[in-house]
Amino acid sequence: MIVEGDNLMSEDMNFKSLFIGDKSENSSIYGNELDRLITNHFGWRKNYIPGDVPAISDKEKEKEDYQQSLQRQHNVLDELDHRLRAGSVPWMSAGRYWGQMLSDTLTPAMLAYSDAMLWNANNVTIECSMANSKMEAEVGEDLSQLLGFKDGWAHLTHDGSIENLEGIWYMRQFKSMPLAFKEVVPDKVKGLSEWELFNMSVEKVLKILKTLTPEQIDAVKAHSSRSGKNIQKLGKFIVSYTKHYSWLKALDISGIGLDQMVQIPVMSDFRMNIDILEDTIKKLAAEKTPILGVVAVVGTTEEGQVDEVDRIVKFRKEMEKQGVYFYLHVDAAYGGYARALFKDENDHFVEYDQLEDMFKKHDVFHYPVRISKHVYNSYKAIRDAESVTIDPHKMGYVPYCAGGIAIKYQSMRNVISYFAPYVFEKKTATAPDMLGSYIIGGSKGGATATGVWAAHRTLPLNITGYGRLIGSSIETAQRFHKFLEGLEFNVKGKTIKAYPLDNPDFNMVDWVLKVEGETSLEKTNALNEKMFDLSSFYDSHVYANRFLTSHTIFKKDTYGDSPVPFIEKMGFSKNDWEKVGAVTLLRAAIMTPFLNNTELFNDYTKGIAKSMKEKLNEIL
Amino acid sequence: MIVEGDNLMSEDMNFKSLFIGDKSENSSIYGNELDRLITNHFGWRKNYIPGDVPAISDKEKEKEDYQQSLQRQHNVLDELDHRLRAGSVPWMSAGRYWGQMLSDTLTPAMLAYSDAMLWNANNVTIECSMANSKMEAEVGEDLSQLLGFKDGWAHLTHDGSIENLEGIWYMRQFKSMPLAFKEVVPDKVKGLSEWELFNMSVEKVLKILKTLTPEQIDAVKAHSSRSGKNIQKLGKFIVSYTKHYSWLKALDISGIGLDQMVQIPVMSDFRMNIDILEDTIKKLAAEKTPILGVVAVVGTTEEGQVDEVDRIVKFRKEMEKQGVYFYLHVDAAYGGYARALFKDENDHFVEYDQLEDMFKKHDVFHYPVRISKHVYNSYKAIRDAESVTIDPHKMGYVPYCAGGIAIKYQSMRNVISYFAPYVFEKKTATAPDMLGSYIIGGSKGGATATGVWAAHRTLPLNITGYGRLIGSSIETAQRFHKFLEGLEFNVKGKTIKAYPLDNPDFNMVDWVLKVEGETSLEKTNALNEKMFDLSSFYDSHVYANRFLTSHTIFKKDTYGDSPVPFIEKMGFSKNDWEKVGAVTLLRAAIMTPFLNNTELFNDYTKGIAKSMKEKLNEIL
Repeated sequence: MIVEGDNLMSEDMNFKSLFIGDKSENSSIYGNELDRLITNHFGWRKNYIPGDVPAISDKEKEKEDYQQSLQRQHNVLDELDHRLRAGSVPWMSAGRYWGQMLSDTLTPAMLAYSDAMLWNANNVTIECSMANSKMEAEVGEDLSQLLGFKDGWAHLTHDGSIENLEGIWYMRQFKSMPLAFKEVVPDKVKGLSEWELFNMSVEKVLKILKTLTPEQIDAVKAHSSRSGKNIQKLGKFIVSYTKHYSWLKALDISGIGLDQMVQIPVMSDFRMNIDILEDTIKKLAAEKTPILGVVAVVGTTEEGQVDEVDRIVKFRKEMEKQGVYFYLHVDAAYGGYARALFKDENDHFVEYDQLEDMFKKHDVFHYPVRISKHVYNSYKAIRDAESVTIDPHKMGYVPYCAGGIAIKYQSMRNVISYFAPYVFEKKTATAPDMLGSYIIGGSKGGATATGVWAAHRTLPLNITGYGRLIGSSIETAQRFHKFLEGLEFNVKGKTIKAYPLDNPDFNMVDWVLKVEGETSLEKTNALNEKMFDLSSFYDSHVYANRFLTSHTIFKKDTYGDSPVPFIEKMGFSKNDWEKVGAVTLLRAAIMTPFLNNTELFNDYTKGIAKSMKEKLNEIL
Repeated sequence: MIVEGDNLMSEDMNFKSLFIGDKSENSSIYGNELDRLITNHFGWRKNYIPGDVPAISDKEKEKEDYQQSLQRQHNVLDELDHRLRAGSVPWMSAGRYWGQMLSDTLTPAMLAYSDAMLWNANNVTIECSMANSKMEAEVGEDLSQLLGFKDGWAHLTHDGSIENLEGIWYMRQFKSMPLAFKEVVPDKVKGLSEWELFNMSVEKVLKILKTLTPEQIDAVKAHSSRSGKNIQKLGKFIVSYTKHYSWLKALDISGIGLDQMVQIPVMSDFRMNIDILEDTIKKLAAEKTPILGVVAVVGTTEEGQVDEVDRIVKFRKEMEKQGVYFYLHVDAAYGGYARALFKDENDHFVEYDQLEDMFKKHDVFHYPVRISKHVYNSYKAIRDAESVTIDPHKMGYVPYCAGGIAIKYQSMRNVISYFAPYVFEKKTATAPDMLGSYIIGGSKGGATATGVWAAHRTLPLNITGYGRLIGSSIETAQRFHKFLEGLEFNVKGKTIKAYPLDNPDFNMVDWVLKVEGETSLEKTNALNEKMFDLSSFYDSHVYANRFLTSHTIFKKDTYGDSPVPFIEKMGFSKNDWEKVGAVTLLRAAIMTPFLNNTELFNDYTKGIAKSMKEKLNEIL
């Protein structure tokens, strides 16, 4: 291991060196490193049994069809280049793209990927991927540690939707195991009522499994929900109204079904209403309806909000005393990596009152950033969940497709696996020989793991690395929020003001542009829709566009009345809300790593304000 | 479109120019094309609003932490390079790697991927991926056409396991729709018995859906198996004993459950026993047990065998007359691309008696290759299945992770989608704006689609492109089979012979090495296990290893007695089989594109024979 022995480990990383840059500032470094890596790869090919004759002779190369085929490849790549340049949105821009969860990605990840792809390993089994499988295991360790799982395990997946499905698969399997115990090894659950079986914790299930023979374990698994039985009896799946639609797909695909979904309203801050969650669970428990599981979101995709995971964890502990248990999954696909912000250079999760000092010591912020106690507590409590969705290709700043899922105990994976679980093995640092046996997917590119590995090794998953990087995006979000609060335009005799949602939990900022005195919510929605059209891929001159954003719509059927305080702040009434039933917002997932600099921030916000004004002039 | 207008379209491609090569023969072309593409990308970044100040200043670059971070990246990439070189298996070798489904991959795909990754598009929605989403739609068209689906649709996925899960999701949804019709729009199925509802064809379901209002469609979907109800009533899922284990996972995850699985034995040629399949279905039908669906495999992962899809299709037509219907999915993850071998330069599927002429015209084979009528008929009949798994990252020779699934009718996707299906739209060439609404997954790298697109555009999916390429691998398999038939070693006074399985359907060859006169099947298995250990990643000097292979074990619990004729050929008895219950084979998925050349083939087989002999000397 070269890296772990070097003396850079506890230094603060300057992440700006690790992006190509909005103006290709680091392009020559990228080119040089890439050239070095692929040259080494070519040498490796050339020198495998050097005495072997090359498969492609010089005579072959001179053939007309050989040259024609190369010409064809060249033409295709020309077309590709043309189509990408004409059909891509410049989200690498330091300060003109304020839209989707897209930005420049880390060069170590891209370089590693471009190199590893040439070796084309398949991490489904170690036989097809010796080096890369080990890297995936190391990345899994990283993610487990980041989330605070001491005995945990994690692996990479394709994307958040697949991870959520895997999370629900875990949930379903664990909930069904006690019923299978009752059928196969009744002695182990003697005296327990059906209600007690439905409320057995993951820990208790694992404990019983440890006492069984391999044959018994196989038999129990065969009687679990894997058999197809009892799925409808396992109870309700609880999620907030504003959930990502991948949860609908996951419920559907897993056979649990949408009929088992219970939705919890969000509050006016767009976090799940925990009071209602608690009441709902108590009510279900009183009716003896089991609770399959609860999903908390850390970083909602539309508002970047963070559910109060700590309160859910605390409530669960209380309910456990009353014999009620539910599985907790945290959907931190978007927000998970930000846990690095709370970890010091030794990977310790610091106390809230020490945060300020740590941020100062590591020169994280250049603006008075406020991280609320609520957000801190939620992040801290992630370690008490059973499983967590966390996407390297979002706030890990690595290229697609690199999702991830972590489980609290490595032994949990034996409940979904398709391997004889001869040993409920102790936690080890090595990957299983057959990763495909423990996950939903099968073939998986070794290059994906390699890319994430290189990013993690370059930027530590604590305050010195990812903490500083994500800190920069949060700082920019708070700067941007402040900027919007003061934003005002005068166009054609009208005054237009920006109304951002309240201070965001994370790095997403939503806002509405409104003409002062406008009393129609419908017209205001139309104005913002139009602004989106003029500031997005819908604009045919997107490459010349000087302000780009995305949008979202809060609708009454999912948001209930939670947007009412916000629209009232704009001067609309609850009556308007009842009538229109939707509010359109402009939406910025602020990922740019470059704007934690006052001069640059002011420069760009001046630029985009000018562009917005021109567009308003066109719209009004 | 540059490519479609050029005059290379109907020329035969020389695929040897489109690989880096086993000895890096085309490395300088690769390097030059890559350099050109990334330089253009850098220019694109630099020239977006050229007046904007760069985010990274020269002053920043001079900072110590900036340089230190770059140094750290450099060190990490050094470690990466070291670990990949030490921990990779040389499957790009022209003739020394005879193992897993791994080989050199197509340069257009790798170059396109390396370039497209820099733009980091997300094909989940067109907003995040304008250019790349269109390429995915075009790739989908390609795959649909390749499989013979005139009104079909296809998209890329992560891997075959996810595709099989999506296939089973389709199956489950369609089977449940008639029950939902009965609940929501009873008039539409008036007079139909429950048995008739369970046997409604996909076409009939689509026809009824076309007559419904959008609101009715939503209501029907809400009452489908998506609700969680009726799943256990939908009937039996039929698959062969030798199925890939991803089908177990898919049954489990989808909530259908392993209890619904009915397994069909394979014959001594390792294809599904269609007689037994027919009997089984007739028996189930007589008992009024519905049949959820049947899976046929085109290219089994252990033997490369091709199930008789045409016979299943024919049988289904017969049964439909008797009111019995089942969904047919073809798992052609491995073999699907070989359909290009049967398509002429105008993409027409040629008649069997014209194959020979077409192969000659396009100079496909340089050895007397036999494509059986059986294989031809199976490939032809794929177009009659409802859905097909097909993996670009297998016989499409593109890097991971690029799986794919195709459906017979584009409108089928509305049955699993999470969009209001306002229009059961006509087939169009464009991608849906929200691909994520129609598939299991969510975020999906635009670069994946771009890579596959570049491969397809360079190598047409007919005899001129992929046909010739895959033809080469099949030719090599048949040459290798012949070579094994004559292979004999004399080591330490013993004679060792190779026993290959009968002529393969595709490009996979399995064989056993056996000491003449050896009467112990167990010892023979041990010999082959040992040969695998010495010829695989288990060998610590894998980079210097001169013969590499993989292995497989046929066990009685999955293969039944189908291996008996084979082991009898080796001189063992049925009694030995009963006693040992397993036979270990060496296994080569022959993907090398380079060995359709007698001189090179002889050179390498001489080399690997020598290496095998040295290993036998070590083992015996």
